[in-house]
Amino acid sequence: MAQKPKTSPDSTRRSEKSRRAIHAAALELVGEVGYPKTTIEGIAARAGVGKQTIYRWWSSKADVLLDAFMDLGEQAAQAAGQEPYEIPDTGDLAADLKLVLRATVDELLEPRFDAPARALAAEGVVNERLGVEFVTNLLEPQLQLYVRRLRSAQDKGAVRHDIDPRIALELFVSPLAQRWLQRTGPISYEYTDTLVEYALYGLTPR
Amino acid sequence: MAQKPKTSPDSTRRSEKSRRAIHAAALELVGEVGYPKTTIEGIAARAGVGKQTIYRWWSSKADVLLDAFMDLGEQAAQAAGQEPYEIPDTGDLAADLKLVLRATVDELLEPRFDAPARALAAEGVVNERLGVEFVTNLLEPQLQLYVRRLRSAQDKGAVRHDIDPRIALELFVSPLAQRWLQRTGPISYEYTDTLVEYALYGLTPR
Repeated sequence: MAQKPKTSPDSTRRSEKSRRAIHAAALELVGEVGYPKTTIEGIAARAGVGKQTIYRWWSSKADVLLDAFMDLGEQAAQAAGQEPYEIPDTGDLAADLKLVLRATVDELLEPRFDAPARALAAEGVVNERLGVEFVTNLLEPQLQLYVRRLRSAQDKGAVRHDIDPRIALELFVSPLAQRWLQRTGPISYEYTDTLVEYALYGLTPR
Repeated sequence: MAQKPKTSPDSTRRSEKSRRAIHAAALELVGEVGYPKTTIEGIAARAGVGKQTIYRWWSSKADVLLDAFMDLGEQAAQAAGQEPYEIPDTGDLAADLKLVLRATVDELLEPRFDAPARALAAEGVVNERLGVEFVTNLLEPQLQLYVRRLRSAQDKGAVRHDIDPRIALELFVSPLAQRWLQRTGPISYEYTDTLVEYALYGLTPR
Protein backbone atom coordinates (compact mmCIF):
# COMPACT_ATOMS: atom_id res chain seq x y z
CA MET A 1 0.00 0.00 0.00
CA ALA A 2 1.09 3.57 -0.66
CA GLN A 3 2.45 5.71 2.12
CA LYS A 4 1.97 9.45 1.88
CA PRO A 5 5.37 11.11 2.13
CA LYS A 6 5.74 13.42 5.13
CA THR A 7 7.52 16.47 3.70
CA SER A 8 7.11 20.18 2.91
CA PRO A 9 4.02 21.51 1.04
CA ASP A 10 5.99 22.04 -2.20
CA SER A 11 7.49 18.59 -2.15
CA THR A 12 4.07 17.15 -1.26
CA ARG A 13 2.58 18.81 -4.35
CA ARG A 14 5.35 17.40 -6.53
CA SER A 15 4.92 13.98 -4.93
CA GLU A 16 1.17 14.08 -5.52
CA LYS A 17 1.76 14.90 -9.17
CA SER A 18 4.17 11.97 -9.47
CA ARG A 19 1.76 9.63 -7.72
CA ARG A 20 -1.01 10.57 -10.14
CA ALA A 21 1.28 10.13 -13.15
CA ILE A 22 2.36 6.72 -11.86
CA HIS A 23 -1.24 5.63 -11.28
CA ALA A 24 -2.25 6.73 -14.78
CA ALA A 25 0.77 5.05 -16.36
CA ALA A 26 0.14 1.79 -14.50
CA LEU A 27 -3.52 1.67 -15.55
CA GLU A 28 -2.75 2.49 -19.17
CA LEU A 29 0.06 -0.02 -19.39
CA VAL A 30 -1.78 -2.95 -17.84
CA GLY A 31 -4.74 -2.22 -20.13
CA GLU A 32 -2.46 -2.31 -23.17
CA VAL A 33 -0.08 -5.21 -22.48
CA GLY A 34 -1.81 -7.19 -19.70
CA TYR A 35 -0.68 -7.88 -16.17
CA PRO A 36 2.19 -10.35 -16.79
CA LYS A 37 4.01 -7.95 -19.16
CA THR A 38 3.49 -4.86 -17.02
CA THR A 39 6.71 -3.98 -15.16
CA ILE A 40 7.79 -1.33 -12.67
CA GLU A 41 10.35 -0.21 -15.29
CA GLY A 42 7.61 0.22 -17.89
CA ILE A 43 5.40 2.17 -15.51
CA ALA A 44 8.31 4.43 -14.51
CA ALA A 45 9.25 5.11 -18.16
CA ARG A 46 5.68 6.00 -19.09
CA ALA A 47 5.15 8.17 -16.02
CA GLY A 48 8.45 9.97 -16.64
CA VAL A 49 9.85 9.13 -13.20
CA GLY A 50 12.74 7.04 -11.97
CA LYS A 51 12.18 3.43 -10.87
CA GLN A 52 13.30 4.41 -7.36
CA THR A 53 10.44 6.91 -7.10
CA ILE A 54 8.03 4.03 -7.51
CA TYR A 55 9.87 1.76 -5.07
CA ARG A 56 9.85 4.57 -2.50
CA TRP A 57 6.05 4.29 -2.26
CA TRP A 58 5.14 0.80 -3.44
CA SER A 59 6.75 -2.61 -3.11
CA SER A 60 5.38 -4.26 -6.27
CA LYS A 61 3.40 -3.65 -9.45
CA ALA A 62 0.40 -5.29 -7.77
CA ASP A 63 0.58 -2.60 -5.05
CA VAL A 64 0.79 0.23 -7.59
CA LEU A 65 -2.24 -1.13 -9.44
CA LEU A 66 -4.23 -1.73 -6.27
CA ASP A 67 -3.66 1.89 -5.27
CA ALA A 68 -4.45 3.16 -8.76
CA PHE A 69 -7.79 1.31 -8.80
CA MET A 70 -8.73 2.56 -5.35
CA ASP A 71 -8.07 6.09 -6.59
CA LEU A 72 -10.14 5.48 -9.72
CA GLY A 73 -13.02 4.13 -7.63
CA GLU A 74 -12.97 7.19 -5.38
CA GLN A 75 -12.94 9.49 -8.41
CA ALA A 76 -15.88 7.61 -9.95
CA ALA A 77 -17.88 7.88 -6.73
CA GLN A 78 -17.18 11.60 -6.53
CA ALA A 79 -18.16 12.06 -10.19
CA ALA A 80 -21.46 10.33 -9.35
CA GLY A 81 -21.92 12.74 -6.43
CA GLN A 82 -21.58 9.91 -3.91
CA GLU A 83 -19.43 9.32 -0.90
CA PRO A 84 -17.05 6.50 -1.84
CA TYR A 85 -17.55 4.66 1.44
CA GLU A 86 -21.30 4.47 1.85
CA ILE A 87 -24.53 3.66 0.06
CA PRO A 88 -27.28 6.26 0.59
CA ASP A 89 -29.97 5.33 3.08
CA THR A 90 -33.09 7.31 2.19
CA GLY A 91 -35.37 4.63 3.63
CA ASP A 92 -36.25 3.45 0.10
CA LEU A 93 -34.03 0.40 -0.36
CA ALA A 94 -34.94 -0.23 -4.01
CA ALA A 95 -34.22 3.40 -4.96
CA ASP A 96 -30.92 3.45 -3.07
CA LEU A 97 -29.69 0.21 -4.65
CA LYS A 98 -30.75 1.34 -8.13
CA LEU A 99 -28.83 4.59 -7.71
CA VAL A 100 -25.60 2.88 -6.72
CA LEU A 101 -25.87 0.22 -9.41
CA ARG A 102 -26.49 2.91 -12.05
CA ALA A 103 -23.25 4.57 -10.93
CA THR A 104 -21.51 1.19 -11.27
CA VAL A 105 -22.90 0.86 -14.80
CA ASP A 106 -21.38 4.27 -15.61
CA GLU A 107 -18.03 3.17 -14.19
CA LEU A 108 -18.01 -0.16 -16.05
CA LEU A 109 -18.79 1.58 -19.34
CA GLU A 110 -15.99 4.11 -18.82
CA PRO A 111 -13.20 3.28 -21.34
CA ARG A 112 -10.52 4.51 -18.91
CA PHE A 113 -11.70 1.83 -16.47
CA ASP A 114 -12.54 -1.00 -18.84
CA ALA A 115 -9.18 -2.14 -20.24
CA PRO A 116 -7.14 -2.02 -17.00
CA ALA A 117 -9.95 -3.56 -14.95
CA ARG A 118 -10.30 -6.39 -17.48
CA ALA A 119 -6.54 -7.03 -17.45
CA LEU A 120 -6.55 -7.28 -13.67
CA ALA A 121 -9.70 -9.39 -13.50
CA ALA A 122 -8.35 -11.79 -16.14
CA GLU A 123 -5.10 -12.24 -14.23
CA GLY A 124 -7.03 -12.77 -10.99
CA VAL A 125 -8.98 -15.64 -12.59
CA VAL A 126 -5.80 -17.68 -13.19
CA ASN A 127 -3.46 -16.19 -10.54
CA GLU A 128 -5.01 -17.07 -7.19
CA ARG A 129 -2.65 -14.97 -5.06
CA LEU A 130 -3.29 -11.82 -7.06
CA GLY A 131 -7.02 -12.56 -7.38
CA VAL A 132 -7.41 -12.93 -3.62
CA GLU A 133 -5.36 -9.78 -2.97
CA PHE A 134 -7.55 -7.68 -5.25
CA VAL A 135 -10.82 -9.15 -4.06
CA THR A 136 -9.82 -8.65 -0.42
CA ASN A 137 -8.63 -5.08 -0.83
CA LEU A 138 -10.75 -3.74 -3.67
CA LEU A 139 -13.94 -5.72 -4.31
CA GLU A 140 -14.92 -7.04 -0.87
CA PRO A 141 -14.87 -3.60 0.81
CA GLN A 142 -17.33 -2.44 -1.87
CA LEU A 143 -19.54 -5.47 -1.28
CA GLN A 144 -19.51 -4.73 2.46
CA LEU A 145 -21.21 -1.40 1.69
CA TYR A 146 -24.19 -3.41 0.43
CA VAL A 147 -24.04 -5.63 3.51
CA ARG A 148 -24.37 -2.54 5.72
CA ARG A 149 -27.23 -1.11 3.65
CA LEU A 150 -29.11 -4.43 3.72
CA ARG A 151 -28.59 -4.76 7.50
CA SER A 152 -30.07 -1.30 7.97
CA ALA A 153 -33.05 -2.42 5.86
CA GLN A 154 -33.38 -5.54 8.03
CA ASP A 155 -33.46 -3.35 11.15
CA LYS A 156 -36.39 -1.47 9.62
CA GLY A 157 -38.21 -4.62 8.49
CA ALA A 158 -37.70 -3.93 4.78
CA VAL A 159 -35.62 -7.09 4.31
CA ARG A 160 -36.46 -10.47 5.86
CA HIS A 161 -34.55 -11.19 9.07
CA ASP A 162 -33.55 -14.70 7.95
CA ILE A 163 -31.67 -13.33 4.92
CA ASP A 164 -27.84 -13.37 4.91
CA PRO A 165 -26.95 -9.92 3.49
CA ARG A 166 -23.55 -11.12 2.21
CA ILE A 167 -25.30 -13.64 -0.06
CA ALA A 168 -28.32 -11.45 -0.83
CA LEU A 169 -26.25 -8.65 -2.38
CA GLU A 170 -24.92 -11.10 -4.97
CA LEU A 171 -28.38 -11.36 -6.54
CA PHE A 172 -27.99 -7.89 -8.04
CA VAL A 173 -24.20 -7.35 -7.98
CA SER A 174 -23.05 -10.63 -9.57
CA PRO A 175 -25.29 -10.54 -12.66
CA LEU A 176 -23.87 -7.12 -13.55
CA ALA A 177 -20.34 -8.36 -12.86
CA GLN A 178 -20.81 -11.42 -15.07
CA ARG A 179 -22.34 -9.43 -17.95
CA TRP A 180 -19.36 -7.12 -17.79
CA LEU A 181 -16.65 -9.76 -17.32
CA GLN A 182 -17.95 -12.40 -19.71
CA ARG A 183 -20.01 -10.20 -22.04
CA THR A 184 -23.08 -12.39 -21.54
CA GLY A 185 -25.45 -9.49 -22.23
CA PRO A 186 -25.80 -5.72 -22.50
CA ILE A 187 -25.41 -3.45 -19.48
CA SER A 188 -27.82 -0.57 -18.87
CA TYR A 189 -29.72 1.30 -16.12
CA GLU A 190 -32.87 -0.54 -17.15
CA TYR A 191 -31.09 -3.84 -16.62
CA THR A 192 -29.77 -3.05 -13.14
CA ASP A 193 -33.13 -1.54 -12.10
CA THR A 194 -34.72 -4.84 -13.15
CA LEU A 195 -32.20 -6.86 -11.13
CA VAL A 196 -33.06 -4.87 -8.00
CA GLU A 197 -36.80 -5.38 -8.54
CA TYR A 198 -36.44 -9.12 -9.11
CA ALA A 199 -34.10 -9.58 -6.15
CA LEU A 200 -36.22 -7.64 -3.68
CA TYR A 201 -39.65 -8.99 -4.67
CA GLY A 202 -38.76 -12.46 -6.00
CA LEU A 203 -39.67 -14.29 -9.17
CA THR A 204 -42.75 -16.10 -7.85
CA PRO A 205 -46.16 -14.39 -7.59
CA ARG A 206 -46.90 -12.62 -4.29
CA MET B 1 -16.51 -27.30 -34.89
CA ALA B 2 -15.59 -30.97 -35.12
CA GLN B 3 -16.83 -33.10 -37.94
CA LYS B 4 -17.26 -36.79 -37.29
CA PRO B 5 -15.19 -38.68 -39.85
CA LYS B 6 -17.26 -40.87 -42.18
CA THR B 7 -15.21 -44.05 -42.40
CA SER B 8 -15.17 -47.76 -41.48
CA PRO B 9 -15.96 -48.92 -37.90
CA ASP B 10 -12.29 -49.69 -37.15
CA SER B 11 -11.08 -46.39 -38.42
CA THR B 12 -13.94 -44.67 -36.54
CA ARG B 13 -12.79 -46.30 -33.32
CA ARG B 14 -9.23 -45.16 -33.93
CA SER B 15 -10.46 -41.68 -34.79
CA GLU B 16 -12.57 -41.54 -31.64
CA LYS B 17 -9.54 -42.50 -29.58
CA SER B 18 -7.51 -39.73 -31.24
CA ARG B 19 -10.26 -37.17 -30.71
CA ARG B 20 -10.43 -37.99 -27.01
CA ALA B 21 -6.63 -37.82 -26.66
CA ILE B 22 -6.60 -34.44 -28.44
CA HIS B 23 -9.39 -33.10 -26.22
CA ALA B 24 -7.59 -34.22 -23.08
CA ALA B 25 -4.27 -32.81 -24.28
CA ALA B 26 -5.84 -29.46 -25.18
CA LEU B 27 -7.54 -29.10 -21.79
CA GLU B 28 -4.40 -30.08 -19.86
CA LEU B 29 -2.17 -27.79 -21.86
CA VAL B 30 -4.36 -24.68 -21.66
CA GLY B 31 -4.73 -25.28 -17.91
CA GLU B 32 -0.95 -25.43 -17.53
CA VAL B 33 0.35 -22.69 -19.83
CA GLY B 34 -2.71 -20.51 -20.50
CA TYR B 35 -4.51 -19.79 -23.75
CA PRO B 36 -1.94 -17.55 -25.51
CA LYS B 37 0.87 -20.14 -25.17
CA THR B 38 -1.26 -23.12 -26.15
CA THR B 39 -0.51 -24.17 -29.75
CA ILE B 40 -1.80 -26.82 -32.14
CA GLU B 41 1.78 -28.17 -32.20
CA GLY B 42 1.81 -28.49 -28.42
CA ILE B 43 -1.57 -30.22 -28.35
CA ALA B 44 -0.48 -32.65 -31.09
CA ALA B 45 2.77 -33.50 -29.29
CA ARG B 46 1.00 -34.17 -26.00
CA ALA B 47 -1.76 -36.20 -27.64
CA GLY B 48 0.80 -38.24 -29.59
CA VAL B 49 -0.74 -37.42 -32.97
CA GLY B 50 0.46 -35.48 -35.99
CA LYS B 51 -0.47 -31.83 -36.43
CA GLN B 52 -2.37 -32.77 -39.59
CA THR B 53 -4.66 -35.05 -37.60
CA ILE B 54 -5.81 -32.01 -35.64
CA TYR B 55 -6.19 -29.81 -38.72
CA ARG B 56 -8.29 -32.53 -40.36
CA TRP B 57 -10.99 -31.99 -37.74
CA TRP B 58 -10.52 -28.49 -36.41
CA SER B 59 -9.44 -25.18 -37.90
CA SER B 60 -7.92 -23.54 -34.81
CA LYS B 61 -6.96 -24.11 -31.19
CA ALA B 62 -10.12 -22.21 -30.16
CA ASP B 63 -12.17 -24.82 -32.06
CA VAL B 64 -10.37 -27.74 -30.40
CA LEU B 65 -10.95 -26.22 -26.96
CA LEU B 66 -14.59 -25.39 -27.67
CA ASP B 67 -15.19 -29.01 -28.65
CA ALA B 68 -13.23 -30.32 -25.67
CA PHE B 69 -15.32 -28.24 -23.25
CA MET B 70 -18.59 -29.34 -24.86
CA ASP B 71 -17.48 -32.93 -24.40
CA LEU B 72 -16.54 -32.27 -20.77
CA GLY B 73 -19.93 -30.67 -20.12
CA GLU B 74 -21.75 -33.66 -21.58
CA GLN B 75 -19.66 -36.04 -19.48
CA ALA B 76 -20.40 -34.00 -16.34
CA ALA B 77 -24.14 -34.04 -17.04
CA GLN B 78 -24.06 -37.80 -17.58
CA ALA B 79 -22.07 -38.29 -14.36
CA ALA B 80 -24.80 -36.33 -12.55
CA GLY B 81 -27.43 -38.63 -14.11
CA GLN B 82 -28.84 -35.75 -16.17
CA GLU B 83 -29.56 -35.18 -19.82
CA PRO B 84 -27.07 -32.57 -21.00
CA TYR B 85 -29.69 -30.59 -22.89
CA GLU B 86 -32.49 -30.12 -20.42
CA ILE B 87 -33.31 -29.15 -16.86
CA PRO B 88 -35.72 -31.54 -15.13
CA ASP B 89 -39.33 -30.35 -14.86
CA THR B 90 -40.91 -32.13 -11.90
CA GLY B 91 -43.32 -29.26 -11.31
CA ASP B 92 -41.24 -28.13 -8.30
CA LEU B 93 -39.20 -25.25 -9.70
CA ALA B 94 -37.08 -24.67 -6.57
CA ALA B 95 -36.15 -28.36 -6.35
CA ASP B 96 -35.31 -28.59 -10.06
CA LEU B 97 -33.10 -25.50 -9.99
CA LYS B 98 -31.33 -26.65 -6.83
CA LEU B 99 -30.57 -30.02 -8.41
CA VAL B 100 -29.00 -28.51 -11.52
CA LEU B 101 -27.02 -25.92 -9.56
CA ARG B 102 -25.68 -28.64 -7.26
CA ALA B 103 -24.42 -30.48 -10.34
CA THR B 104 -22.77 -27.24 -11.49
CA VAL B 105 -21.09 -26.93 -8.09
CA ASP B 106 -19.70 -30.45 -8.55
CA GLU B 107 -18.41 -29.56 -12.01
CA LEU B 108 -16.80 -26.29 -10.86
CA LEU B 109 -15.02 -28.06 -8.00
CA GLU B 110 -13.69 -30.78 -10.35
CA PRO B 111 -9.89 -30.22 -10.74
CA ARG B 112 -9.97 -31.55 -14.31
CA PHE B 113 -12.39 -28.72 -15.18
CA ASP B 114 -11.03 -25.91 -13.02
CA ALA B 115 -7.64 -25.07 -14.57
CA PRO B 116 -8.66 -25.22 -18.26
CA ALA B 117 -11.95 -23.43 -17.64
CA ARG B 118 -10.14 -20.66 -15.76
CA ALA B 119 -7.58 -20.28 -18.55
CA LEU B 120 -10.35 -19.93 -21.12
CA ALA B 121 -12.45 -17.59 -18.99
CA ALA B 122 -9.43 -15.38 -18.25
CA GLU B 123 -8.61 -15.10 -21.95
CA GLY B 124 -12.26 -14.33 -22.75
CA VAL B 125 -12.19 -11.37 -20.33
CA VAL B 126 -9.47 -9.59 -22.31
CA ASN B 127 -9.95 -11.15 -25.76
CA GLU B 128 -13.40 -10.07 -26.92
CA ARG B 129 -13.53 -12.25 -30.04
CA LEU B 130 -12.69 -15.42 -28.12
CA GLY B 131 -14.92 -14.44 -25.19
CA VAL B 132 -17.92 -13.93 -27.46
CA GLU B 133 -17.24 -17.20 -29.30
CA PHE B 134 -17.17 -19.19 -26.09
CA VAL B 135 -20.16 -17.46 -24.54
CA THR B 136 -22.20 -17.93 -27.72
CA ASN B 137 -21.34 -21.58 -28.20
CA LEU B 138 -20.78 -22.86 -24.69
CA LEU B 139 -22.32 -20.67 -21.97
CA GLU B 140 -25.42 -19.18 -23.63
CA PRO B 141 -26.85 -22.57 -24.70
CA GLN B 142 -26.62 -23.63 -21.03
CA LEU B 143 -28.34 -20.43 -19.90
CA GLN B 144 -31.11 -21.06 -22.43
CA LEU B 145 -31.93 -24.29 -20.56
CA TYR B 146 -32.86 -22.11 -17.59
CA VAL B 147 -34.87 -19.82 -19.84
CA ARG B 148 -36.93 -22.81 -21.01
CA ARG B 149 -37.44 -24.10 -17.46
CA LEU B 150 -38.53 -20.66 -16.23
CA ARG B 151 -40.93 -20.25 -19.19
CA SER B 152 -42.52 -23.58 -18.32
CA ALA B 153 -42.91 -22.32 -14.73
CA GLN B 154 -44.51 -19.12 -16.04
CA ASP B 155 -47.00 -21.19 -18.03
CA LYS B 156 -47.99 -22.92 -14.80
CA GLY B 157 -48.19 -19.68 -12.79
CA ALA B 158 -45.16 -20.53 -10.63
CA VAL B 159 -43.19 -17.53 -11.93
CA ARG B 160 -44.65 -14.04 -12.48
CA HIS B 161 -45.64 -13.36 -16.07
CA ASP B 162 -43.92 -9.96 -16.15
CA ILE B 163 -40.52 -11.57 -15.43
CA ASP B 164 -37.94 -11.79 -18.24
CA PRO B 165 -36.52 -15.33 -17.81
CA ARG B 166 -33.21 -14.41 -19.48
CA ILE B 167 -32.54 -11.86 -16.75
CA ALA B 168 -34.18 -13.86 -13.94
CA LEU B 169 -31.82 -16.83 -14.33
CA GLU B 170 -28.86 -14.56 -13.62
CA LEU B 171 -30.02 -14.10 -10.03
CA PHE B 172 -28.90 -17.64 -9.18
CA VAL B 173 -26.43 -18.44 -11.99
CA SER B 174 -24.26 -15.30 -11.87
CA PRO B 175 -23.49 -15.33 -8.12
CA LEU B 176 -22.13 -18.86 -8.47
CA ALA B 177 -20.17 -17.85 -11.57
CA GLN B 178 -18.65 -14.85 -9.82
CA ARG B 179 -17.69 -16.81 -6.69
CA TRP B 180 -15.95 -19.33 -8.90
CA LEU B 181 -14.29 -16.86 -11.30
CA GLN B 182 -13.23 -14.20 -8.81
CA ARG B 183 -13.05 -16.32 -5.65
CA THR B 184 -15.36 -13.90 -3.80
CA GLY B 185 -16.63 -16.65 -1.52
CA PRO B 186 -16.93 -20.39 -0.93
CA ILE B 187 -19.05 -22.60 -3.21
CA SER B 188 -21.33 -25.29 -1.75
CA TYR B 189 -24.75 -26.92 -2.16
CA GLU B 190 -26.00 -24.90 0.79
CA TYR B 191 -24.95 -21.71 -0.98
CA THR B 192 -26.68 -22.51 -4.29
CA ASP B 193 -29.81 -23.74 -2.47
CA THR B 194 -29.89 -20.37 -0.69
CA LEU B 195 -29.53 -18.47 -3.97
CA VAL B 196 -32.55 -20.30 -5.39
CA GLU B 197 -34.65 -19.55 -2.30
CA TYR B 198 -33.72 -15.86 -2.30
CA ALA B 199 -34.29 -15.46 -6.04
CA LEU B 200 -37.68 -17.18 -6.09
CA TYR B 201 -39.16 -15.65 -2.94
CA GLY B 202 -37.36 -12.29 -2.79
CA LEU B 203 -35.51 -10.48 -0.04
CA THR B 204 -38.42 -8.42 1.26
CA PRO B 205 -41.04 -9.87 3.65
CA ARG B 206 -44.08 -11.48 1.99
